[in-house]
Amino acid sequence: MAMPPPARPRRLLPLSLGLFQGALLLCFALFFTYDKPSAQAEDVILVASKIYSTFPLFQDIQVMLVVGLGLLLAFLPHYGLSALSHNFLLLNFSMQWALVLQGLLHHFHHGQVHLNLHSLLTAEFAAVTVLISVGAILGRASPCQLLVVAACEVPIYFASEWAIVTRLGILDVGGTITIHVFSCYFGLGVSKALFGAAQQPVHPKESPTHSSDLLSLVGTLILWVFWPSFVAALCQPGDAQHRAILNTLLAMSASAVTAVVASSLLEKDGKLRPSHLQNGSLAGGVAIGAVADLAVPPASALALGSLSAVVCVLGFRFLTPLLARKLTLRDQCGIHNLHGLPGLLGALASVVAILAAPKDSSES
Amino acid sequence: MAMPPPARPRRLLPLSLGLFQGALLLCFALFFTYDKPSAQAEDVILVASKIYSTFPLFQDIQVMLVVGLGLLLAFLPHYGLSALSHNFLLLNFSMQWALVLQGLLHHFHHGQVHLNLHSLLTAEFAAVTVLISVGAILGRASPCQLLVVAACEVPIYFASEWAIVTRLGILDVGGTITIHVFSCYFGLGVSKALFGAAQQPVHPKESPTHSSDLLSLVGTLILWVFWPSFVAALCQPGDAQHRAILNTLLAMSASAVTAVVASSLLEKDGKLRPSHLQNGSLAGGVAIGAVADLAVPPASALALGSLSAVVCVLGFRFLTPLLARKLTLRDQCGIHNLHGLPGLLGALASVVAILAAPKDSSES
Amino acid sequence: MAMPPPARPRRLLPLSLGLFQGALLLCFALFFTYDKPSAQAEDVILVASKIYSTFPLFQDIQVMLVVGLGLLLAFLPHYGLSALSHNFLLLNFSMQWALVLQGLLHHFHHGQVHLNLHSLLTAEFAAVTVLISVGAILGRASPCQLLVVAACEVPIYFASEWAIVTRLGILDVGGTITIHVFSCYFGLGVSKALFGAAQQPVHPKESPTHSSDLLSLVGTLILWVFWPSFVAALCQPGDAQHRAILNTLLAMSASAVTAVVASSLLEKDGKLRPSHLQNGSLAGGVAIGAVADLAVPPASALALGSLSAVVCVLGFRFLTPLLARKLTLRDQCGIHNLHGLPGLLGALASVVAILAAPKDSSES
Repeated sequence: MAMPPPARPRRLLPLSLGLFQGALLLCFALFFTYDKPSAQAEDVILVASKIYSTFPLFQDIQVMLVVGLGLLLAFLPHYGLSALSHNFLLLNFSMQWALVLQGLLHHFHHGQVHLNLHSLLTAEFAAVTVLISVGAILGRASPCQLLVVAACEVPIYFASEWAIVTRLGILDVGGTITIHVFSCYFGLGVSKALFGAAQQPVHPKESPTHSSDLLSLVGTLILWVFWPSFVAALCQPGDAQHRAILNTLLAMSASAVTAVVASSLLEKDGKLRPSHLQNGSLAGGVAIGAVADLAVPPASALALGSLSAVVCVLGFRFLTPLLARKLTLRDQCGIHNLHGLPGLLGALASVVAILAAPKDSSES
Repeated sequence: MAMPPPARPRRLLPLSLGLFQGALLLCFALFFTYDKPSAQAEDVILVASKIYSTFPLFQDIQVMLVVGLGLLLAFLPHYGLSALSHNFLLLNFSMQWALVLQGLLHHFHHGQVHLNLHSLLTAEFAAVTVLISVGAILGRASPCQLLVVAACEVPIYFASEWAIVTRLGILDVGGTITIHVFSCYFGLGVSKALFGAAQQPVHPKESPTHSSDLLSLVGTLILWVFWPSFVAALCQPGDAQHRAILNTLLAMSASAVTAVVASSLLEKDGKLRPSHLQNGSLAGGVAIGAVADLAVPPASALALGSLSAVVCVLGFRFLTPLLARKLTLRDQCGIHNLHGLPGLLGALASVVAILAAPKDSSES
Repeated sequence: MAMPPPARPRRLLPLSLGLFQGALLLCFALFFTYDKPSAQAEDVILVASKIYSTFPLFQDIQVMLVVGLGLLLAFLPHYGLSALSHNFLLLNFSMQWALVLQGLLHHFHHGQVHLNLHSLLTAEFAAVTVLISVGAILGRASPCQLLVVAACEVPIYFASEWAIVTRLGILDVGGTITIHVFSCYFGLGVSKALFGAAQQPVHPKESPTHSSDLLSLVGTLILWVFWPSFVAALCQPGDAQHRAILNTLLAMSASAVTAVVASSLLEKDGKLRPSHLQNGSLAGGVAIGAVADLAVPPASALALGSLSAVVCVLGFRFLTPLLARKLTLRDQCGIHNLHGLPGLLGALASVVAILAAPKDSSES
């Protein structure tokens, strides 16, 4: 007869999570406040117009992270509910944690941190890195392990973002390098550290069915539709934001078409594999982030989108099995193919764009 | 041999619904018109800017009610299609009915009612009360019964809203009291009146499966994402709306984390129950409505969100079985836990906020 | 023993699609550029405010086409994944093709085409016609055939739109005639040409199940919610856009209620048929497009919505079987009932509105 499981580990998650939420609450009580009410009518109009310009994009990004990414991760049957719940819990945990951290680190004016929609947006971006990274260990890590990963990754993200953007001065409006490349290699490192030794066989729960693939594709489509909002949210209003939206749309459109082409050519039976479409369609959005707001010609956005879809599909076909075989590195959702390779491609494109651009192109 | 069912009752629903739609059409033809076209260029800009500021929020609320709430109610397998259809039909019926009623009651200027986006928004809010109330009798009432409930509830809602907001002067921007508490107890009353006598056993159709719980969770997430738009839609533009958005986001984030904590601590096996997550994550949004636009500190929004998730999960665990046993009161979707208890908590918070606030805090 | 299938046809799709994407890329490289950066601060504000007013509507339309329409087409079980993927691929292919075509045709200023959000929006509208037309041959045509249809339909759409709007001067802000009626009869023609001879029996894959009907209804609801954005996107800002939003909301609300009435009255068992609800609820949106921005009284929008739902349900019940029997014309998704008949009704309403209106009603 099997022994009943010990009671303590089951209580570890809720107790530590509850303590963490309590500590965050304390930090909010001590340090956070809202902006003072605007004294003059002009200031009221300014605040209102900031909300009208930022809030729709913020909501688009929330839909992406909560619904789109959650469904994309639901491709394992019998694991969909957990994937969606864990994604949702991690987002909320990481977002509050990032709010507190960035409040204490960056915005410490006169003892009180002034909270606004912009600070929530940047906290959301920090939380995205966690959601991407855990894709590598989806369905294998316990909720406690996921929370530890989140607690560690957020401060490291802020440090790396400070190094890349503030110290090195790299332009990265869509987070290609700071978010996608960073979180991909962080996640692969975590996967290696936690599960590197074991050569696990593929679990039967891990082969997608028609209906789980359908849900996952719906998640892809939601991410695909709202990706331009993600890239454009932190852009300079005006021409730069307009270009960011258009470039992202073009790159993702080329990406979707090319993913179908590449997948059909690579597979022996000529059939499109759902995972290639689910990930390849989004690869263009990852790559374009670094150059989206620059005055690059539209054709280069299309070309970058196509190229990243090819790289992503090739990664799924050849690199993932190779990494699993040679390095015993398991990458459950293929984050290296969706975030790593297209992110590196985007970084390369950014170098080319800076070198090729006339001197004043990024000023407007 | 069973007798064939009589033909008449089957025709009762479409005929009465058709007659109602015809009568509403007649009311529209007699009393409703649009605003006169703006005569001057400045007026055109004013109309346009009102659309830009209101319409995205209006669309967010539509997604919540039509898609989010519909899917949340689809947690009973084999009943998902009906839940989604009934929710959709009730929304349209109640919204038109509310438009006509509020047109005749409030906006009767010069014989003609001038329709605009704001009047549709308030009619939508009236329809929400119906959608919440019928959650108590989901899957047990016939479509005809649902329509009768809708036809009765809308005028009673307007009367109660007038009493609470206009007569008593209670501030309730997010509808915590006027919408959530009202519709909860209205729905429980209807449930008691219709099904109070019978001690029905739990129907096999009524145990959620993995895939129906997944759909329901997607509904929760859609509601969760767009809830800030619901609370902020009728706010004063500027700082008050900004605070409403931020407070709602914070409350719901704390709510989601705390629902997981509370559910895992309460269940013997330490496992999160889907219904706790589906409802507990939203409890913070219900409670924060009454105080969202006030100048409360951010920490109190977090605390209110946490507290309402705890209350909601405790309600599911202890109060719902108690009410079913002692009062033979069935609450199919647990509306008392999601709307009743957090709503009362929000009302209490509103009293505290008013008492604790400095004199001019709600002016800006 | 079965012969292995020849390798070539399997490669035909990806190779031709890849070539097409390459050719489009070349066109973009040769002819397309972005608007020059705004020189002055006022221009920056103008560009920014154009984005804030257009981009949320654009995103709504993207959600409709990619997620809503894709799910609506997923009513055939075992075919949902293909329906969603083909819809997505066709949208991207047609949108790029329409961008290139309209760039070369209309916007040829000074040798370079200036790309902006408005040109993407009109390209999207051209792509919609393809997505509607292929509804008639859903699940029967190969991906290659679908792409040939798309390649042919986009230029014919531009020609017909030029004839209808520019030459005949017909007002059609929501695309009732130019998009819905055109693409319906184009699609029926394609269906007749490809599959007219064969009297195919109904395939077992073609009877919807509870869960495929549920997904399809979610698609309907997404389309229903965002339809006002589709109709209002190209409206004159101000009163005309305000009226377009309100009229579309009223028409679609009446449409949803009436579809339930008409379906329940027509079916012998008094039960609502999912396909009637899925299509009838949207019929009002198709019909209202032609008159949405005119100063018609609100009651006429309700009446038009009700009438088109009746026409749509009657079409499903009587006309589709008749066409299949008499003309061997198969209409898989019933596009004639959703787009053809309500579109013709809308065109008729447009004639009545113009004749009945006072002289200056469409000016504001």
